[in-house]
Amino acid sequence: MSRRVITLTTDFGMGSPYVAEMKGVILSIHPEVVMVDISHQVAPQDVRQAALILDQAAWRFPDGTIHVCVVDPGVGTDRRIVFAHLGSQYFIAPDNGILSRLMGRDELRRALVLTEPNLWLHPVSDTFHGRDIMAPVAARVAAGQPLEHLGPATDRLVMLDWSEPEMRGAEIHGQVLSVDSFGNVITNISHDLVDRLGSSAAICVRCAGHTIRGVVRTYGQRDPGTLVALIGSSGLLEMAVVQGHAAQRLRVESGAAVTVSCV
Amino acid sequence: MSRRVITLTTDFGMGSPYVAEMKGVILSIHPEVVMVDISHQVAPQDVRQAALILDQAAWRFPDGTIHVCVVDPGVGTDRRIVFAHLGSQYFIAPDNGILSRLMGRDELRRALVLTEPNLWLHPVSDTFHGRDIMAPVAARVAAGQPLEHLGPATDRLVMLDWSEPEMRGAEIHGQVLSVDSFGNVITNISHDLVDRLGSSAAICVRCAGHTIRGVVRTYGQRDPGTLVALIGSSGLLEMAVVQGHAAQRLRVESGAAVTVSCV
Amino acid sequence: MSRRVITLTTDFGMGSPYVAEMKGVILSIHPEVVMVDISHQVAPQDVRQAALILDQAAWRFPDGTIHVCVVDPGVGTDRRIVFAHLGSQYFIAPDNGILSRLMGRDELRRALVLTEPNLWLHPVSDTFHGRDIMAPVAARVAAGQPLEHLGPATDRLVMLDWSEPEMRGAEIHGQVLSVDSFGNVITNISHDLVDRLGSSAAICVRCAGHTIRGVVRTYGQRDPGTLVALIGSSGLLEMAVVQGHAAQRLRVESGAAVTVSCV
Repeated sequence: MSRRVITLTTDFGMGSPYVAEMKGVILSIHPEVVMVDISHQVAPQDVRQAALILDQAAWRFPDGTIHVCVVDPGVGTDRRIVFAHLGSQYFIAPDNGILSRLMGRDELRRALVLTEPNLWLHPVSDTFHGRDIMAPVAARVAAGQPLEHLGPATDRLVMLDWSEPEMRGAEIHGQVLSVDSFGNVITNISHDLVDRLGSSAAICVRCAGHTIRGVVRTYGQRDPGTLVALIGSSGLLEMAVVQGHAAQRLRVESGAAVTVSCV
Repeated sequence: MSRRVITLTTDFGMGSPYVAEMKGVILSIHPEVVMVDISHQVAPQDVRQAALILDQAAWRFPDGTIHVCVVDPGVGTDRRIVFAHLGSQYFIAPDNGILSRLMGRDELRRALVLTEPNLWLHPVSDTFHGRDIMAPVAARVAAGQPLEHLGPATDRLVMLDWSEPEMRGAEIHGQVLSVDSFGNVITNISHDLVDRLGSSAAICVRCAGHTIRGVVRTYGQRDPGTLVALIGSSGLLEMAVVQGHAAQRLRVESGAAVTVSCV
Repeated sequence: MSRRVITLTTDFGMGSPYVAEMKGVILSIHPEVVMVDISHQVAPQDVRQAALILDQAAWRFPDGTIHVCVVDPGVGTDRRIVFAHLGSQYFIAPDNGILSRLMGRDELRRALVLTEPNLWLHPVSDTFHGRDIMAPVAARVAAGQPLEHLGPATDRLVMLDWSEPEMRGAEIHGQVLSVDSFGNVITNISHDLVDRLGSSAAICVRCAGHTIRGVVRTYGQRDPGTLVALIGSSGLLEMAVVQGHAAQRLRVESGAAVTVSCV
């Protein structure tokens, strides 16, 4: 059998010894695992950002990959820690909405509450369940621990409100979802929705007082410095400045309104 | 036998080609190794910070893990490069105090001076012994090189002065040890010492003109923005702002005085 | 056979889900691979910087390592994606000059244009060929895909202009090539060239209005704060401030003129 993969997504910051502590715990329990960092640059306590990053990256991994997600402002309180088997992927995270962007993408086959202290690292600290509960459970699952040992089943997970774009007449009203490392402004409007309005050339995108006419296929179709609209690699409408930083140009962040129409 | 683990801790910065050079050297000698980055974000030449990070993370790793630590302002001078077998862990580092925080945590079973050029990469540069001496020796040890081939034994390593908290009457006088990526202010005062003063509720922590009454168990017990004292995941007293940045609030850095008393 | 190594060099930023998406794709195709991040901190669209980083790090890796380089401002346009077998190393990258610093260091044994869609991930996005073309082809090569399946041979790759130092009379006229994470200013002047001028003590380096007399062997030979010239770990003349930041002191960046003479 090939080696199991465990991914890590946290708000600890790159180079944090907290990340290394988790990796040490995992390797101590199951040295044969492959560990991949998804991101440790989630803004502190930003559960929504973590949920988006996870949803963007997790589905690309091999079946049975275990994604450990530690953005956990409620650590040590009565918030639950859960295991979720969604489609072909496994997730271990605090039940604070971090998995809610993934829900509905694929079948929730199983959700369990981690309540079995025999699988944890002791003494369990009150402030770092990533190291003391999530990492050891992930390592044990990778090593073949039967899932029914983790804890009791649950039938609901905490869901955050994810604003969906609305079609009003011939206009789509959506929002900025995130800004990537290039400054590209990614919206919650999918390519399907845009396609319904009309041809690429006739599309008109408005955001923060700027108007972009036409949707290009890729960045290199326009001169450096041009503000363009295009469908990004996740299938969502985005705004970009060719070889520049669209979020700075538009002065927008997550939640800003975006309107798409057809001229 | 399971694959050996080599960790890397440097001040090279994430994404530095110097880190990649070391990894290439290691994999060229022993491809079966597992490499883990502890941190490459140590402030340039900050041996004390590296020593703290290493002490926080190293003990979590599997027995026989080889920790390579390259914060080396004296590279190319007559400072020694050493191998240390401390408890269950191995360390390879310049003998500049970087290992001194680890000493005394567990038995120093063996310390050797790396003097055997046959194990190095040639030509040896004058400015990058991490790549030319430490990485190849680590890879060879991982591959099974007998330790007695590395060089002669030594019975003392360079020790830095680590200020310890003092009990004066009914007060503990300690210091800020470090600030983590969340801005939490970690002191050198252990939970044992705090416990000796009295009950959590009666503890009073003073630092930089601020007074915190009571020690909470975890962040989520207070409202966002509240300055709290608690015992962190390494068992040390720390000050935190719930969902905020305590070091900015207190305007403190390493070395600042902290006093704990009982009211 | 030992496990194949795939390295990744991008301008996506550390912690970008784009990097994680590539890793997921690679592991899904070939779970036995070893992945190493060379750098994800290349400045956006900075093909020259990526070319330098790659040249510094790639040659240290085991024979047959596959280096995937995604700094790709022309993604989705008619720029080609190529596979190059250079010396003992394999490279997969857009044909935009990113490989041009490597050329001439070792024999170009084979160059192929990636044109075989059967080896790609579908649907292929217009903006992320790193994930949809380069990552899957790298994983398949690592898994043993015969190279002749990748696409047709090509006999020329895009070359950037790399300024070479000139000897004019008894002076070397060169340039700043890059600045490392310590602020050390690395020039394009090799130690061979410097050696030809005279003894270390008699060398005189001028840059940005500063004059440095003598070439030291390593940083620790001078007091903290001193501006020194030395031969760095890649064999190139560099300027450094001992335990300081030379690029800030000199206020220079890539391309600045450097003159070396003998007094």
